[in-house]
Amino acid sequence: MRNLNKLSAVDAAAAVAAKRISSVELVEACLAQINQREPTVGAWVCLDREQVLRDARECDAGPSRGPLHGVPVGVKDNIDTRDLPTEYGSRIYRGHRPQRDAACVNLARRAGGIIMGKTVTTEFAMFEPNKTANPHNLLHTPGGSSSGSAAAVADFHVPVAFGTQSAGSIIRPSAYCGVVGYKPTFNTFAPDGIKPIGASLDTLGVIVRSVGDLQLMWNVLQGQAARRLAALRQNPRIGLCRTPFWYEAAPEQCTALELAGARLANAGFVVEEIVLPGWFRTLNDLHARLMAYEVARNHVFEFDVARRDLLGKRTRAQFELGWSISPEEYLEGRAALHRARKDFGFFCEGFDAIMTPASPGEAPPIAGTGDPVFNSMWTLLGVPAVTLPVGVGPKGLPVGVQFVARTDDDLALLEVCRRMEVVFSDRFDCK
Amino acid sequence: MRNLNKLSAVDAAAAVAAKRISSVELVEACLAQINQREPTVGAWVCLDREQVLRDARECDAGPSRGPLHGVPVGVKDNIDTRDLPTEYGSRIYRGHRPQRDAACVNLARRAGGIIMGKTVTTEFAMFEPNKTANPHNLLHTPGGSSSGSAAAVADFHVPVAFGTQSAGSIIRPSAYCGVVGYKPTFNTFAPDGIKPIGASLDTLGVIVRSVGDLQLMWNVLQGQAARRLAALRQNPRIGLCRTPFWYEAAPEQCTALELAGARLANAGFVVEEIVLPGWFRTLNDLHARLMAYEVARNHVFEFDVARRDLLGKRTRAQFELGWSISPEEYLEGRAALHRARKDFGFFCEGFDAIMTPASPGEAPPIAGTGDPVFNSMWTLLGVPAVTLPVGVGPKGLPVGVQFVARTDDDLALLEVCRRMEVVFSDRFDCK
Repeated sequence: MRNLNKLSAVDAAAAVAAKRISSVELVEACLAQINQREPTVGAWVCLDREQVLRDARECDAGPSRGPLHGVPVGVKDNIDTRDLPTEYGSRIYRGHRPQRDAACVNLARRAGGIIMGKTVTTEFAMFEPNKTANPHNLLHTPGGSSSGSAAAVADFHVPVAFGTQSAGSIIRPSAYCGVVGYKPTFNTFAPDGIKPIGASLDTLGVIVRSVGDLQLMWNVLQGQAARRLAALRQNPRIGLCRTPFWYEAAPEQCTALELAGARLANAGFVVEEIVLPGWFRTLNDLHARLMAYEVARNHVFEFDVARRDLLGKRTRAQFELGWSISPEEYLEGRAALHRARKDFGFFCEGFDAIMTPASPGEAPPIAGTGDPVFNSMWTLLGVPAVTLPVGVGPKGLPVGVQFVARTDDDLALLEVCRRMEVVFSDRFDCK
Repeated sequence: MRNLNKLSAVDAAAAVAAKRISSVELVEACLAQINQREPTVGAWVCLDREQVLRDARECDAGPSRGPLHGVPVGVKDNIDTRDLPTEYGSRIYRGHRPQRDAACVNLARRAGGIIMGKTVTTEFAMFEPNKTANPHNLLHTPGGSSSGSAAAVADFHVPVAFGTQSAGSIIRPSAYCGVVGYKPTFNTFAPDGIKPIGASLDTLGVIVRSVGDLQLMWNVLQGQAARRLAALRQNPRIGLCRTPFWYEAAPEQCTALELAGARLANAGFVVEEIVLPGWFRTLNDLHARLMAYEVARNHVFEFDVARRDLLGKRTRAQFELGWSISPEEYLEGRAALHRARKDFGFFCEGFDAIMTPASPGEAPPIAGTGDPVFNSMWTLLGVPAVTLPVGVGPKGLPVGVQFVARTDDDLALLEVCRRMEVVFSDRFDCK
């Protein structure tokens, strides 16, 4: 087999399990790709090639440990690892070594996964860009904050990588890099060992290249397989939602959403427009203020005690915004959040998924990480979201469409996305 | 002034601010009490007397840093500190030293507080008892998991200590030790640096001896003072709720609730009985299963990688229970949780607080940590809870009554509790 590094996690695990390939061969193919591409893409903070090969040899020598046996996994650098540094994208934590692995790292290992290394995050998983480039065009951003995870998966360094999202940190980079990103329902996977930024929003998720790998990783991160796939009706009903932020969508994103809707309708899905009430437009501002408030409280050490001059200016601005918000304003915001979460369920009623932009358009130039305008609202609502790559924009960069569902309807959302990805297997032109 | 260690945090801070006492005098009084009592009470895991005195001298030498200036605070040992070990009550973590302080520790320091030391927690803040005794009777449990924090505050070692609650870990020990415990609305205070056990439930809170100190600590932990106290009507309306677990209440708890209700009615509060629908009786089982499921996923390292033989049998039982629950059962449980949270608001409508047992009765013998039967349901609902000491039981031990309110109505709950604590200033006989 050639191009082993292009296999999905499901296919790679199956090939290792059937002894058609060894874990060492798989890992060597991934390392070869990294050796070639990393100098320009910059997806990794650190990587211990010898350790990775030792782990692969150990997998090959022993019985299967689980559904990820012998498959390499990237770990975003805001997630603690005990045998690799964890720097949170911050100069304050240069060389920092936590004393234990995060729960998700242990769960991956428990399923037989091999930790490939740490992927680049923006500073404290917020808005200060880091060194990663978009593998499709090095002058463009991969998006953030899970910049390295999205780039590494898109560039075939690993089939799967962990990301986290508190605004648009999984969906946006996945869309910009043309891969499949999954932000689960708030509080779906064990958070132990992930540095909190905004506790009402922080969500661990996964970046892959095919929806089947999301289903695999869902099982891995629950530590146990779901006993059955979610039942899905013959003609799933998809709500097409432009959101109150539609005016922010670039032409390629508008085209992508229209074409994706039309293609789904042709394929037998029932596609109907959903218009959210006007007050949903307040949710992004609400998100920004709740996040900044919580971020400031969780980073007193970094802002007050450690060297403030080591912080990027966007990070400092977040902390300062957070400290400008009073506890009363924060509580009013939470009340609005509770109302919004309650109301949103109503608009989803009867839909298997809601399709909506994943980002304003193609990845912008590398100076920033892009705008989470089409992500913050869903993160605030706590609902599950998946982005699928559907098209190619005028600059030749990927364009994604996002699918969201009701709280805790993750398994059904993944199943409907699995059925939809076939419909999008040839990308359409969104020029 | 004598008995400085018996001052509330509010009074101590005011005395230090007015230079009526020094922080060193205050801290020395607390240390003298600890020297005398710690050998039998066992509230502390570690304490650096020299460091505490250095911090106090620094407070005395400088300008006020905030509302807690010069006042010592106890920190539960599941909360990270960088200058003191953090052992999570577990033999696996003997001598463990985290690399930074938790956000709440930094917030306390930021307000001028002095970290007195680490207070005893049960193993991983669950059910395995540790070394602490109830200061009112050494043969009885202080309750758990915030055993050391409750005992230290009750025994006048410190005016205030941090606790955490995922089942009944603040309210129960506070009631058993005759102090004031506060478990806020889920996700009220910054969680950075607290080891997660069940992410749907874990809540940072505070143990003190008077409600004014809770209001002070609310401000400290928000990093900013609330601009006004919550408005309260002339005759607050209190719902008396026996809960579906009333049959678990010992005679002294039954008496305490009745007498407390009667005394509040005499004092001008409107007290009315609330009966929750029968299905609320399922919430404690639901809580136990959700907690065990999440606990197991967050402790893969401790269960799989570290030495399992170093775990207590109650802790192992929690992990094993958690791994016996399937992801589907967990998701069904979450659905029930969402329904319960939605419905509960309805039953609170029009009430300023709901009074309910804080524990089944007086503290049981020291072999266990008591039963969270009157706590788990409220923790699951995510609502704020305060316990006030109201009476003395047949064994001469304290009996508490718990007051809960709607999600995010914490400031109003604290204000109504402040008014009620006067009514309970002389404890009644619950024999």
